[in-house]
Amino acid sequence: MSVTRRTLVSAPAMGLAGSALAGAAMAQAPSGSTNSPVAAGQGGQPGFYRYKLGDIDITAVHDGQAMRPLEGLIKNAELADVKKAAADAFLPSDALPITFTPMVVRSGGKTILFDAGNGDVGAPTAGKARANLTAAGIDPTKVDIVIVSHFHGDHINGLRLKDGSAVYPNAEIMVPAPEWAFWMDDSKMSAAPEAMKGAFQGVRRVFGPIAKDVKQFEWGKEIAPGITAIDASGHTPGHTAFGLQSAGKSLIHVVDLTNHPRLFAAHPDWAAVFDMDAEKAKTARRRMLDMAATERTQLAFYHAPFPATGHVRREGQGYEFVPVQWVSGT
Amino acid sequence: MSVTRRTLVSAPAMGLAGSALAGAAMAQAPSGSTNSPVAAGQGGQPGFYRYKLGDIDITAVHDGQAMRPLEGLIKNAELADVKKAAADAFLPSDALPITFTPMVVRSGGKTILFDAGNGDVGAPTAGKARANLTAAGIDPTKVDIVIVSHFHGDHINGLRLKDGSAVYPNAEIMVPAPEWAFWMDDSKMSAAPEAMKGAFQGVRRVFGPIAKDVKQFEWGKEIAPGITAIDASGHTPGHTAFGLQSAGKSLIHVVDLTNHPRLFAAHPDWAAVFDMDAEKAKTARRRMLDMAATERTQLAFYHAPFPATGHVRREGQGYEFVPVQWVSGT
Repeated sequence: MSVTRRTLVSAPAMGLAGSALAGAAMAQAPSGSTNSPVAAGQGGQPGFYRYKLGDIDITAVHDGQAMRPLEGLIKNAELADVKKAAADAFLPSDALPITFTPMVVRSGGKTILFDAGNGDVGAPTAGKARANLTAAGIDPTKVDIVIVSHFHGDHINGLRLKDGSAVYPNAEIMVPAPEWAFWMDDSKMSAAPEAMKGAFQGVRRVFGPIAKDVKQFEWGKEIAPGITAIDASGHTPGHTAFGLQSAGKSLIHVVDLTNHPRLFAAHPDWAAVFDMDAEKAKTARRRMLDMAATERTQLAFYHAPFPATGHVRREGQGYEFVPVQWVSGT
Repeated sequence: MSVTRRTLVSAPAMGLAGSALAGAAMAQAPSGSTNSPVAAGQGGQPGFYRYKLGDIDITAVHDGQAMRPLEGLIKNAELADVKKAAADAFLPSDALPITFTPMVVRSGGKTILFDAGNGDVGAPTAGKARANLTAAGIDPTKVDIVIVSHFHGDHINGLRLKDGSAVYPNAEIMVPAPEWAFWMDDSKMSAAPEAMKGAFQGVRRVFGPIAKDVKQFEWGKEIAPGITAIDASGHTPGHTAFGLQSAGKSLIHVVDLTNHPRLFAAHPDWAAVFDMDAEKAKTARRRMLDMAATERTQLAFYHAPFPATGHVRREGQGYEFVPVQWVSGT
């Protein structure tokens, strides 16, 4: 018997022959998710998630999301293929919901923040990190270190509000030396295409007032208790991943090694417009995802769906992201 | 070049040759997830998640979890195959973490609870629904209707505390007529194997004091605003799924059509020990998952990882569960 909508929804075990539900199920547009954001306000779930890695406490902090049109998102794939991949992942068919996930680590007596989110200069649906830090009981004035992975605006703008005030006034700010060298180089800014000049200016807005105090770190070294900086360049010249280890457990925070993993882990050769050196980014992505699949290493991502941690396994020509199973803290 | 652990962790793009992380990554046991539950207490994330379906507000409520040994869990599969499926899903290798997810729906001016969780008679890591309802701003005394899917303890014990008090004292209690007929039949209890008598007694503990007020419903009918009862029997004689519809959107709450979908949607023919009529359960599971994959219908599950909602797509001989992308309410 051929499977048709009619036979499916009127199948005896559904108890639905002729029911209102059968009509409703058919009326549903098959192209997107039915899940919709809930308005902010009382009763909304706080956007933080705590988990453990050995003796380290990790808190994923939700900075909200932004919608990015699928058209023009990927330089080396047909829009139809991108739309199909989005549909396969039950994501919207027109735009990708990109989540931002700063991460707080409590290690060696230090409170360490990885990346600062969008602050007050991003999309209206982003910039929620401060509120969610507060919900998680983390006081921004008590953050000891902010480790910056790279200098794209959605990672650094949350360091300084539009009014110029520092959001983490007592934190040491640590940045990758190669990233600093690139973006703070005025000759690079002059040579950049017009569309990219704003990014250079944004870097100066955030880091200019504290330039002499910013601490630059090198790849391949332990830069904070249990935290090693890893060369993951390509996305930007100094894009850095971080190895975390405690009590025999490890996790790699791969940051922007992929954008949404349902697209870019599944299709690791796709070049998002965000990748400044697409070929180098692809090589790093392939190598690190392959290692993570082989070693079964837990990963954290900046742009995976909240709480943005899980594993990858090989699937077809790419990798499937398997989120960690949520556990309640209450 | 053959891919070995050494080449992977010492690859140039990782910047890790000889670093401490390389050793740590290799020390990590490859057989399980590194994610660990965080102790309850201040700062733990509340276990509720709100989402929309048309004009209906849905709140998934986390009732905690319980570990079920893999050995003896599945009647028609080898333990080695079950362990492999758990490993593929990055779940623990010895026991399955089973999540419990009551669901609150606000529809047609009514506050409706689907299933009540473990109450105070389940595993120490379960019975969190009341605390999480409170965290979500839902007052148990203001719940208008409790719809019960079936009479297993993890769904009904939360209706009445050990001390005999009703947890939802002002709610109408609605149950599937075929489920009531089976469990309240004293001849069925007498004929049941000794190991099953406790389940019959549990049903009497919960429903005995209110037996005359319990409202029985039939399959294939709208039983509350926008909510249709669907025959999903097999798991128990009266196990019921629920179709929800609002403003052209639909969702099916499939309850215990599967236990953990990473095992039982992926392997729909596996018979968990919980299924009272395994063959009938399998037929219902196959039919409803296939319909959901074809129609791209959003599903809610009682035992999927929190927040226990997503879609299924065909994958190999079974179905892959794709969780809905989390959206913050704050």
